[in-house]
Amino acid sequence: MDCDFKLHVYSVVFSHHSDTGMSPKITGELLRQLRQAMKNCKYFSEPIQAYIVPSGDAHQSEYIAPCDCRREFICGFNGSAGTAIVTEQHAALWTDGRYFLQASQQMDNNWTLMKMGLKETPSQEDWLISILPENSKVGVDPWIIAADQWKNMSKALTSAGHSLVAVQDNLIDVVWMDRPERPSTQLRTLGLEYTGMSWQDKITALRTKMTERKVTWFVATALDEIAWLFNLRGADIEYNPVFFAYAIVGMNTIRLFVDLKRLSDPALRDHLQLDSPSKPELSIHTYPYESVYTELQAICAAHSPKDKVWICDKASCALTQVIPKAHRTPIPYTPLCLAKAVKNESEIQGMKMAHIKDAVALCELFAWLEKEIPKGTVTEMSAADKAEELRSQQKEFVGLSFPTISSVGPNGAIIHYRPLPETNRTLSMNEVYLIDSGAQYVDGTTDVTRTVHFGTPSAFEKECFTYVLKGHIAVSAAIFPNGTKGHLLDSFARAALWESGLDYLHGTGHGVGCFLNVHEGPCGISYKTFADEPLEAGMIVSDEPGYYEDGSFGIRIENVVLVVPAQPKYNYRNRGSLTFEPLTLVPIQVKMMNTEMLTQKEREWVNEYHRKCREVIGAELERQGRKEALEWLMRETQPVV
Amino acid sequence: MDCDFKLHVYSVVFSHHSDTGMSPKITGELLRQLRQAMKNCKYFSEPIQAYIVPSGDAHQSEYIAPCDCRREFICGFNGSAGTAIVTEQHAALWTDGRYFLQASQQMDNNWTLMKMGLKETPSQEDWLISILPENSKVGVDPWIIAADQWKNMSKALTSAGHSLVAVQDNLIDVVWMDRPERPSTQLRTLGLEYTGMSWQDKITALRTKMTERKVTWFVATALDEIAWLFNLRGADIEYNPVFFAYAIVGMNTIRLFVDLKRLSDPALRDHLQLDSPSKPELSIHTYPYESVYTELQAICAAHSPKDKVWICDKASCALTQVIPKAHRTPIPYTPLCLAKAVKNESEIQGMKMAHIKDAVALCELFAWLEKEIPKGTVTEMSAADKAEELRSQQKEFVGLSFPTISSVGPNGAIIHYRPLPETNRTLSMNEVYLIDSGAQYVDGTTDVTRTVHFGTPSAFEKECFTYVLKGHIAVSAAIFPNGTKGHLLDSFARAALWESGLDYLHGTGHGVGCFLNVHEGPCGISYKTFADEPLEAGMIVSDEPGYYEDGSFGIRIENVVLVVPAQPKYNYRNRGSLTFEPLTLVPIQVKMMNTEMLTQKEREWVNEYHRKCREVIGAELERQGRKEALEWLMRETQPVV
Repeated sequence: MDCDFKLHVYSVVFSHHSDTGMSPKITGELLRQLRQAMKNCKYFSEPIQAYIVPSGDAHQSEYIAPCDCRREFICGFNGSAGTAIVTEQHAALWTDGRYFLQASQQMDNNWTLMKMGLKETPSQEDWLISILPENSKVGVDPWIIAADQWKNMSKALTSAGHSLVAVQDNLIDVVWMDRPERPSTQLRTLGLEYTGMSWQDKITALRTKMTERKVTWFVATALDEIAWLFNLRGADIEYNPVFFAYAIVGMNTIRLFVDLKRLSDPALRDHLQLDSPSKPELSIHTYPYESVYTELQAICAAHSPKDKVWICDKASCALTQVIPKAHRTPIPYTPLCLAKAVKNESEIQGMKMAHIKDAVALCELFAWLEKEIPKGTVTEMSAADKAEELRSQQKEFVGLSFPTISSVGPNGAIIHYRPLPETNRTLSMNEVYLIDSGAQYVDGTTDVTRTVHFGTPSAFEKECFTYVLKGHIAVSAAIFPNGTKGHLLDSFARAALWESGLDYLHGTGHGVGCFLNVHEGPCGISYKTFADEPLEAGMIVSDEPGYYEDGSFGIRIENVVLVVPAQPKYNYRNRGSLTFEPLTLVPIQVKMMNTEMLTQKEREWVNEYHRKCREVIGAELERQGRKEALEWLMRETQPVV
Repeated sequence: MDCDFKLHVYSVVFSHHSDTGMSPKITGELLRQLRQAMKNCKYFSEPIQAYIVPSGDAHQSEYIAPCDCRREFICGFNGSAGTAIVTEQHAALWTDGRYFLQASQQMDNNWTLMKMGLKETPSQEDWLISILPENSKVGVDPWIIAADQWKNMSKALTSAGHSLVAVQDNLIDVVWMDRPERPSTQLRTLGLEYTGMSWQDKITALRTKMTERKVTWFVATALDEIAWLFNLRGADIEYNPVFFAYAIVGMNTIRLFVDLKRLSDPALRDHLQLDSPSKPELSIHTYPYESVYTELQAICAAHSPKDKVWICDKASCALTQVIPKAHRTPIPYTPLCLAKAVKNESEIQGMKMAHIKDAVALCELFAWLEKEIPKGTVTEMSAADKAEELRSQQKEFVGLSFPTISSVGPNGAIIHYRPLPETNRTLSMNEVYLIDSGAQYVDGTTDVTRTVHFGTPSAFEKECFTYVLKGHIAVSAAIFPNGTKGHLLDSFARAALWESGLDYLHGTGHGVGCFLNVHEGPCGISYKTFADEPLEAGMIVSDEPGYYEDGSFGIRIENVVLVVPAQPKYNYRNRGSLTFEPLTLVPIQVKMMNTEMLTQKEREWVNEYHRKCREVIGAELERQGRKEALEWLMRETQPVV
């Protein structure tokens, strides 16, 4: 992915998405058919010499539905990031360092693996220019390429005498016989007790922003923004409670584009006031999902020369180009993205509740693991399953928020690891265990990583764990002025590791949705500076430094933290200060710490954190009558001195 | 200024440049003449409705020569940053928060002050669009607007139906009767003992980079880059040992554009091998300064369609647009800029020597101040003069590297303060004294700030000083991986201040030239992320956190530091680590420290730093027989416990 935010997210994300089958996909016949389609003038006026297959969907989603896994279909590689390009003679796949091994195992020798980030690897543009005959046409489905990516690719090709052309029929779909249907799951309405704000008030707030910026239309294309705006949730994409839709909001009209069959439920119709709107400007007009293009075209044809349309620059090229350039106001992230990131009181309350339930499940898991591991029967996969089972016992559990990363010893050093039958290790008393997991509850989304040892960790493991803990605390306890961007905090997480010559090659934190995507913009904590918005009270991000010793172990300590006002001694220029409050309340294993390496302040932070775990999670374990977990919690939260 | 690096520099820089006369300039008649010129078709085919007067010169220099102070001439405001725009009815000046007061005092009521950074202040584009009649033409001298700024302005105006036009004759020059001549000072050649690399080798290294990037021409427009490339220095701009010139380097040719009268000196002709070049491709062809435009035009007309030309995107619009767009390869900073930033052994040696001499002068100054201040006769201005006098006694002294900031009490809180007769305060035993000063020596450039108290500082002054010191140490002692960009270190300088709710509103460090500009790119340490290059061994930057209590005092502790390899315990992925070595060796006043607030490590850093001051500067003071300063040094460098 090209866009800054995605880059950031992908560096934190661990490619949860995939069922890695490790034998290569046989693609000879498929490629033959695709190349035939590339010459078939049914799809365009002239044959194309190359066809680009990006990995996204029409909404630039991070996780995608099976029907959108076109790049995986054509080449076999199913990692989260990668672009395939097929020409008359060649087929090549670009992916990054996390996936070199996986991609080489999943693709047959029709494919060339282009290892991004290596000096000798050409960019897609340079490669195309180097192999294409003069005056070539390169095709791409304009719905699954973002406007900004289209622009860059088109510019590069044009300057070399070629052209990038939009192919309306997706050529992968043409050759994909058993392509799954687009999901259309049941929609769930969320009441004010969860959302804290009606969709009507959200529309009004959006229109205020539009007025401020002299914009008359707003096109929403990101699925989580649409779900948030209408206080609806779906289950169209695994782990992400979203549904396929578009929305176009004008100053007096609201258009929602969605599979109309989904709108029959009376409670839903009532929620959206489809049959009896309170005011005309808050009346939702529904249209089929596919008609967004023609409807936006009609709006643009009808509107006055001064009308401006807001659309995210990550929106699809197809939809963006419907809007005449002079009317387009592309933005790096939308007002909905920012509004969604700043959680209101009800959302914060919900997130806290979700994290309490999640901590209960994890305390139970660790208590259970302690008992079971000596028997030698627990594996990475069965531990992950147990975690899911325990979470599912909690109220309002909906599903996981991403596939559990459950990894033992050397597997822990593979940052995007997900246990599979062929890699599944048994948990033991001799190796470090890292579990990064989270869930969707109706009241909130969780994401937590703990690294533990069930026997006696080595001095080096403890040393590294303690550096990571120092980094975690340095971010969590940081006090910083209002208006500070998250990327300015990233080095705090690394200072202790750096001092010893160590580091980790991913960002430190990402925004977290509220019963929405576990990764969201526009804030985050990363050395990769992207168009991040300043942190403000109510934002929720993860704090997850790590250390990975290849072939040996992985360490990561992750809490979800809430941005809250701080009250330091002074208040320079009345700017006010902020800090973080951990929402995640799961003990951090003291056994893994070299407490002598901690400063007094750091020890106090650990003790205060564990005191709060005891107080809040202890009470809930008590209430739920989960005695063994409670005993485990009390033991694991004894103060360090 | 618009460009990222300049933005950064200006936030660190303290607008040394100016002779602030505090009564407004009377501009009525000048504006009348300018408006007449705007209608005079001698200068263009159609009258223009607005004229933009940027503050820079044709080389986008930070400091400019008197003949280039056109914005000051037309409006009276002489701060370092600001843009004037004159229309038929209005005249407005945009400047930033550092200059609101000064600009309002220096301009008469023909001018509207546009306070940049305030929400209600329109951008230049928005303001123009709001007041211009339809279809207006806005003029600007294409030589003093950078290509990237032209692009943004032109785009905004065009989208509103206006146009930006290049006016070849500068209209300020038309009405400026007594405009000074462009300086043409004597050129100085620098031998290998200073530069460590002949200009021939620098040309060869540049051509290697050009070959790597498939570029056939390089246009050098920044004055310090040209001075560095040819191992020459001038004195055309105060404080900056540069000379007005351009250079165009091809794979087999070198063109130098400079006032040809300057090239008569036989030693200089010999240095440049003007009369007997060793090889044809290392033969310098000299042209008059003004002919760069036509010569570049001729080159572009002659070159093949595949030829690419490297030019900095901060170069003037005039020169950039000579190059056909398809041939232009704009770069945020040039290969010379990067090569110049990484100092070689001879340059490092020279910088060390310069800093030793500079420290001698400062130790003498402080010893003298201690004696003189009780008499009540030392003022900000006389202290600055004394500092210059003491520096000028040192070997190979050339001049100051910027106007000395010498400020007492509340004046210290004005970040860009420069003492003037009407503001000049007397140094006393009761107020904090801040002196930020530096010099040009033939072997190097210095820049150092010390904050001292000659009586008893208050607890609050000590507290703030100690936070600033903690920040200074946190950066100076930081260990970080190779490849780290300077902006990732900025928060280290602020953490202690932030924890108490304090901050400072400028960057933490800028690159420092070697007998060149005291501010240079492409590296720096700032919260404003700009296109900074990763830090690497041999780079030299300043480390200068501060704290400013309005109306009361200012604190800044600045050392120039060299990036050097570090050897921590581990070496993750063989990346190697870096840290800083202070080149500045002037005691940091212990009296201003609250040593109880320092950690053991910080105390050790202070003691080790002072030990080195004693060792290195003590020896030199001894050698130079400067006894009083030596006594002062010994007393001021006693270990803290």
